Amino acid sequence: MTTAPTFADIRIAETRIAAHVHRTPILTSREVDTAAGCRILFKCENFQRTGAFKARGAFNAVLALSPEEAARGVVTHSSGNHAAALALAARERGIPAHVVMPSTAPTPKKAAVAAYGGRIVECEPTLAARLAAADAIVLETGAALIPPFDHRLVAAGQGTAALELIADAGEPLGALTCPVGGGGLLAGTLVAAAELLPSVPVIGAEPAAADDAARGFRQGLMQPQVLPVATIADGLTTAMSDMTFGVMRSLAHDVVTASEAAIVEAMRLIWSRMKIIVEPSSAVPLAALLEGAWKPEGGAVGMILSGGNVDLERLPWGR
Amino acid sequence: MTTAPTFADIRIAETRIAAHVHRTPILTSREVDTAAGCRILFKCENFQRTGAFKARGAFNAVLALSPEEAARGVVTHSSGNHAAALALAARERGIPAHVVMPSTAPTPKKAAVAAYGGRIVECEPTLAARLAAADAIVLETGAALIPPFDHRLVAAGQGTAALELIADAGEPLGALTCPVGGGGLLAGTLVAAAELLPSVPVIGAEPAAADDAARGFRQGLMQPQVLPVATIADGLTTAMSDMTFGVMRSLAHDVVTASEAAIVEAMRLIWSRMKIIVEPSSAVPLAALLEGAWKPEGGAVGMILSGGNVDLERLPWGR
Repeated sequence: MTTAPTFADIRIAETRIAAHVHRTPILTSREVDTAAGCRILFKCENFQRTGAFKARGAFNAVLALSPEEAARGVVTHSSGNHAAALALAARERGIPAHVVMPSTAPTPKKAAVAAYGGRIVECEPTLAARLAAADAIVLETGAALIPPFDHRLVAAGQGTAALELIADAGEPLGALTCPVGGGGLLAGTLVAAAELLPSVPVIGAEPAAADDAARGFRQGLMQPQVLPVATIADGLTTAMSDMTFGVMRSLAHDVVTASEAAIVEAMRLIWSRMKIIVEPSSAVPLAALLEGAWKPEGGAVGMILSGGNVDLERLPWGR
Repeated sequence: MTTAPTFADIRIAETRIAAHVHRTPILTSREVDTAAGCRILFKCENFQRTGAFKARGAFNAVLALSPEEAARGVVTHSSGNHAAALALAARERGIPAHVVMPSTAPTPKKAAVAAYGGRIVECEPTLAARLAAADAIVLETGAALIPPFDHRLVAAGQGTAALELIADAGEPLGALTCPVGGGGLLAGTLVAAAELLPSVPVIGAEPAAADDAARGFRQGLMQPQVLPVATIADGLTTAMSDMTFGVMRSLAHDVVTASEAAIVEAMRLIWSRMKIIVEPSSAVPLAALLEGAWKPEGGAVGMILSGGNVDLERLPWGR
């Protein structure tokens, strides 16, 4: 079973990936603060390399491989931001990245992986087919499987975003919040905050239409995602792993949800007021705050904007 | 006749407006650099208050008024970003802002001015009617006319963007470039650069479809805008004033143009690679660079992204 990252893992990750990822800026907006009724520090992982925080975990896992392991390449069966990030990290290390994607994957996602030099292996659009295809590549090439979140070093890498947010905040933080999909970002954030800001609550946020984490958190037991999942926040439809669920259960203060309408509204607020492009998943924590799913109690809210990869031709508001 | 700002005016403006405007960040993108073939430092005035550099000049002019002058309010006949900026500056000083707008002005522009507390006075959609309406308000109320660029303190305020860009660059600048509409931003940038970086060329950029500045620069004589002007960069359709033209003629290294297709392409490149929202006018300097209208000769290019006010429901690419 995958073990959870320690704080030391996150500190090591910070050093390991420093030359490869951006120390992304923190932006603020008094207009968004007014709308939310609190001060928010936005950690802009939409400006991260490959357009999402996933570059942190991917670089950490790839750079941690021994020369012998690395030479055999890496493989993943994620088709989203993690796949593009893994392809980039592998390219910078000069090793192959095999990315198993369903034949039905959207063209922009395939294009992103290909643009970073990833080798796409198509399979049938079922989870079983993806796992089988990845296993076959591991058997054939000896490549290291780097899953999108159920991996100690991947989650440790994602935790470096919170490390930077806490270090660069410049004012007291009263809470931290980030989206929850598979839980890698949340797990890394929780471990970082537990060490550096042990009294500050960390709140996970997910779409109400994909609320496996929130249900599991309340019941104390991992819950399946109810299928089919219909949310605009397509980066957050994944179910958690035992590892990420365990970290969440022991360290999270709360896991809250946001409606689809609030997610679109929050995304639009960020675009129009802050002039930055975020993907729907990034807007979920702000959406939950705007809906009153939780109330900050003093100090600024540190909010991780997870990514900015959207299809500019298909925006969730009409013309 | 309006006199040109001095460097001292710009330094004074910097101090005067510091508590009211953002010191906007400089962002970079290795992917855009690769596309352009040079290193670019983007000064993000799209993150400025009211979404454009215009807040700098408007605050400078409004805060410089004596208490007696201020009490009578301010008036302008611009309907774009300057009007919204002037309304905000007036509101923060607690004085009225009268904004003369043609009855045909787009609803989002009226809404922006109204949102900042401006009093909109509608008039017929001709320049003569706008000037007459503004004059009538001046006569009636004694309000100070603050035009969008033909004003020493407005242009001085716009020059503070270049001041910050030069101070915060962190690496040698080989050139500066910004869009040219009425020429207030260019004039302020030129005066700032002439003092701080006298050997560094400053290049103005405008749409080929509204190339009055480029034609005038080459001929050494102010040229009229050829009407009707059809460019997506609707912030750059204004003709220059004697003052801004004079500063441009004596201090600019060159004034170059960009095609409409290149402007859309540059805008899309900034959106998709940098994850920031810029209006078409902001993309004109990058468009000119991508088209090879001029060639940087070493050092980073400091490029001012002038604003980010776009109608998110009407983007220049189809779905």
